[in-house]
Amino acid sequence: MTESTSPDSGAPVQDIALIIGGGPGISSSCGRLFSEQGMRVGVAARDPDKPALQLLEKSHGVRRYGCDASHPDAVEQLFKNVVRDLGVPTLVVHNIDGRMQEIFRKGITEADPVFARDTLLNAAFSAFLIGQQAARLMLDNKPNANGAKGTIIFTNASAALKGFPNSGAFAMACHAKSGLAQSMARELMPRGIHIANVPIDAAIGWKREDGTRAHRLAGTTVDDNMVDPDRIAETYLQLHRQHRSTWAFEVVLRPWLEKW
Amino acid sequence: MTESTSPDSGAPVQDIALIIGGGPGISSSCGRLFSEQGMRVGVAARDPDKPALQLLEKSHGVRRYGCDASHPDAVEQLFKNVVRDLGVPTLVVHNIDGRMQEIFRKGITEADPVFARDTLLNAAFSAFLIGQQAARLMLDNKPNANGAKGTIIFTNASAALKGFPNSGAFAMACHAKSGLAQSMARELMPRGIHIANVPIDAAIGWKREDGTRAHRLAGTTVDDNMVDPDRIAETYLQLHRQHRSTWAFEVVLRPWLEKW
Amino acid sequence: MTESTSPDSGAPVQDIALIIGGGPGISSSCGRLFSEQGMRVGVAARDPDKPALQLLEKSHGVRRYGCDASHPDAVEQLFKNVVRDLGVPTLVVHNIDGRMQEIFRKGITEADPVFARDTLLNAAFSAFLIGQQAARLMLDNKPNANGAKGTIIFTNASAALKGFPNSGAFAMACHAKSGLAQSMARELMPRGIHIANVPIDAAIGWKREDGTRAHRLAGTTVDDNMVDPDRIAETYLQLHRQHRSTWAFEVVLRPWLEKW
Amino acid sequence: MTESTSPDSGAPVQDIALIIGGGPGISSSCGRLFSEQGMRVGVAARDPDKPALQLLEKSHGVRRYGCDASHPDAVEQLFKNVVRDLGVPTLVVHNIDGRMQEIFRKGITEADPVFARDTLLNAAFSAFLIGQQAARLMLDNKPNANGAKGTIIFTNASAALKGFPNSGAFAMACHAKSGLAQSMARELMPRGIHIANVPIDAAIGWKREDGTRAHRLAGTTVDDNMVDPDRIAETYLQLHRQHRSTWAFEVVLRPWLEKW
Repeated sequence: MTESTSPDSGAPVQDIALIIGGGPGISSSCGRLFSEQGMRVGVAARDPDKPALQLLEKSHGVRRYGCDASHPDAVEQLFKNVVRDLGVPTLVVHNIDGRMQEIFRKGITEADPVFARDTLLNAAFSAFLIGQQAARLMLDNKPNANGAKGTIIFTNASAALKGFPNSGAFAMACHAKSGLAQSMARELMPRGIHIANVPIDAAIGWKREDGTRAHRLAGTTVDDNMVDPDRIAETYLQLHRQHRSTWAFEVVLRPWLEKW
Repeated sequence: MTESTSPDSGAPVQDIALIIGGGPGISSSCGRLFSEQGMRVGVAARDPDKPALQLLEKSHGVRRYGCDASHPDAVEQLFKNVVRDLGVPTLVVHNIDGRMQEIFRKGITEADPVFARDTLLNAAFSAFLIGQQAARLMLDNKPNANGAKGTIIFTNASAALKGFPNSGAFAMACHAKSGLAQSMARELMPRGIHIANVPIDAAIGWKREDGTRAHRLAGTTVDDNMVDPDRIAETYLQLHRQHRSTWAFEVVLRPWLEKW
Repeated sequence: MTESTSPDSGAPVQDIALIIGGGPGISSSCGRLFSEQGMRVGVAARDPDKPALQLLEKSHGVRRYGCDASHPDAVEQLFKNVVRDLGVPTLVVHNIDGRMQEIFRKGITEADPVFARDTLLNAAFSAFLIGQQAARLMLDNKPNANGAKGTIIFTNASAALKGFPNSGAFAMACHAKSGLAQSMARELMPRGIHIANVPIDAAIGWKREDGTRAHRLAGTTVDDNMVDPDRIAETYLQLHRQHRSTWAFEVVLRPWLEKW
Repeated sequence: MTESTSPDSGAPVQDIALIIGGGPGISSSCGRLFSEQGMRVGVAARDPDKPALQLLEKSHGVRRYGCDASHPDAVEQLFKNVVRDLGVPTLVVHNIDGRMQEIFRKGITEADPVFARDTLLNAAFSAFLIGQQAARLMLDNKPNANGAKGTIIFTNASAALKGFPNSGAFAMACHAKSGLAQSMARELMPRGIHIANVPIDAAIGWKREDGTRAHRLAGTTVDDNMVDPDRIAETYLQLHRQHRSTWAFEVVLRPWLEKW
């Protein structure tokens, strides 16, 4: 079924990273770190002209793509463009959580079904589409020095671990993404693609105007009670570089003070 | 928030059951058992004229409704009709698993995105819509002798417990349903509605022409290696009758010989 | 390996129940209910002369046994005595949680290792010993009408679901019991013995002097925010009577208002 | 409760590592890597004169300690000696799985209770003792540059994730260790100690005579279907170096081809 391969003879591979769902948090941190590590990097977002992404292009040469990732044709076209511009991706990060103001924190009896449906399609169905295109391309890659043809990482949320009250639609989407990731891991890891699901079990720290990160929840006096997105990016890089003899599928990240 | 109520003073309540997703298996077993226990029962299906449902009406007086449960308006109308015909439901069973021949057992790279999307909407989004309508109505019910205003049961599958390879879309839908059920449980149980998620972790036995049940997988010689849907219905009835001091949220049912 | 059996031809079986870890809560509720259902019942406790157990003998003819269930020889002797007095058990309930005042709610740095060790042996190792003796005997039973040779139920606690702070030793013991139950389920269910693990995720209501049950936490005004042990006993009876085509392994019971 | 601390002002800390449960696999890999990273390293084992540990001392200056980690006094003495020789540990790895030939793969009805008890005490109770001593000392450490006072890592096994048949005692011990780790994480992470549980879900590759690692199961033709202990050590180092804003508690490691 799987043939004998010798990863150690794998030549160094030019890493090509694609980040879907761009913003000033995890995606920008990933964009910067991956570029600094010598990867060619693209970022896709519904609105690719957001200031954070323009900044990312300016500072690190990250290529920007516009894409509504809940549409099959749009996702197919995205990957065509990326292959044309950068090459076949070796690292894909799905970073859309689809959390909508309109539905979050609404009870099941009040939530608007239209927003519930959109949450499901934007966060979970898009993961299916991105995962599908990425897998199709990566299966033809040569294994790198760690024996991997590629890595697909799904950023996830607390709601993937536990269905909280007053956020039924979000719980559906996050659980769906975990179910997809598990299925893909069991299917694709034996074919050389590393799949990872990374629920971030806390609020994520934002960036101050002077470029430093805030890691303190408003009204508190203790540092580091929010997740630092630069550290998430580091974990993603470590996952990407794991040897195929020792792959992690799921890593939950949370700050030291988080209740769980 | 929740006021002191005294369930023991609750008068006997006429139970009204609605089963969504009708067929010859679990839904028919539930229809028969609930009727025999004195409930008024309705069953909804995309095609309400299936022989199994006609039989159910004939033998047990179960009322049939046509409904595409993945559409908000259709679900709203269904509940209006049920209230008009039978009264406000006290027991609702969501029994759609949305498994589609077209997508099941296909690898992520081959699966048709259209079917993946339909699986998600038919199995998971419909659960949101049904749960929403049921909750809205039940919250106005008086608590019965067990202190419950109503029970909502989600039939689920093995793929809710584990994302199997070559069925990513189904894993998404089943996980989504579990996430929704958990969120609803944490939200609605303290308001008097019992929510249950019941993954059936095995094949379900079918009915022979003579009315007896097959509980043996083809090619095997051992009895009872398939789940008997009449026993699932019994478990649902027990869940519905649990006292609110001692509610179960999740029950996984599997035959004695099943590997897990 | 497993031969074809026909449970439906199974003659009615005289049920013989043994409850280990006796007190005024779950064990007494089980003792009463099982007796009322026609079973011969025995109860074992370190101190079999507790008032609750004397009462149980008086009111329901439940036979009392003294046994320190963390000692192999004592457990072996217990089962010999039960077989001699009542017959081979068909239903065994392990109801020791080993919670010790001395260790509960102590931080890991303060907890006395001697009590930690005793907690592990009293709650978890005793489950191994009880499960072992019960399984040895039950495997020779004839299947009853539901196809079961016997049922072994482990009462468990919230700490089986989640390791709470300041109770490391209790978390160890409860998790250990779950691990044992899972292993026994996968091993013995295909041989005809139903194994169940039942974490009770809440405080258990006690009995008032007039015989009525308290189901309200002190200082609250809402009923049924504690688990009613009579309802737990009902669930145990339902588990024991499940048909082997549709067995539940784990059931978590909690009151409607419990946070989880 | 927790005061405001500023990890970034933390001076570089001399890392002191203690590995409990020494052998030629994970412990030796950790010993080598930690030494090469500039840590002072000690390793404790029931028999500290094993060839693998002698080699570790010779090649990397790792200090050896004899200790039966299931005895409170022995563990207390071990930590006293380590503090005296190396200083207060900042990284402690509990690497005892307690798997015994005598009990592994035996059915519950055949397993010798004495070995079951020893498995529980050697693998799980020792984790309590080691964790307790480590926590007591680390709480007085100053936070390092990542805001951590120390890291305690529990190596675990597949049986922590799932209770397999014919290994009930091992399932108990591994589950117990997970329960303890969870409890300690919730208790100690907010006090600055990073707790991690790392189930290795596969066989571990051994070392050939020429020093190279075997990562192929006997009789197979595919590389890397066993876990490489050097990669496990890398993951441990990454866990130890995570910033307290972004800690992982549990990481399951398995090879690409492993079924799960």
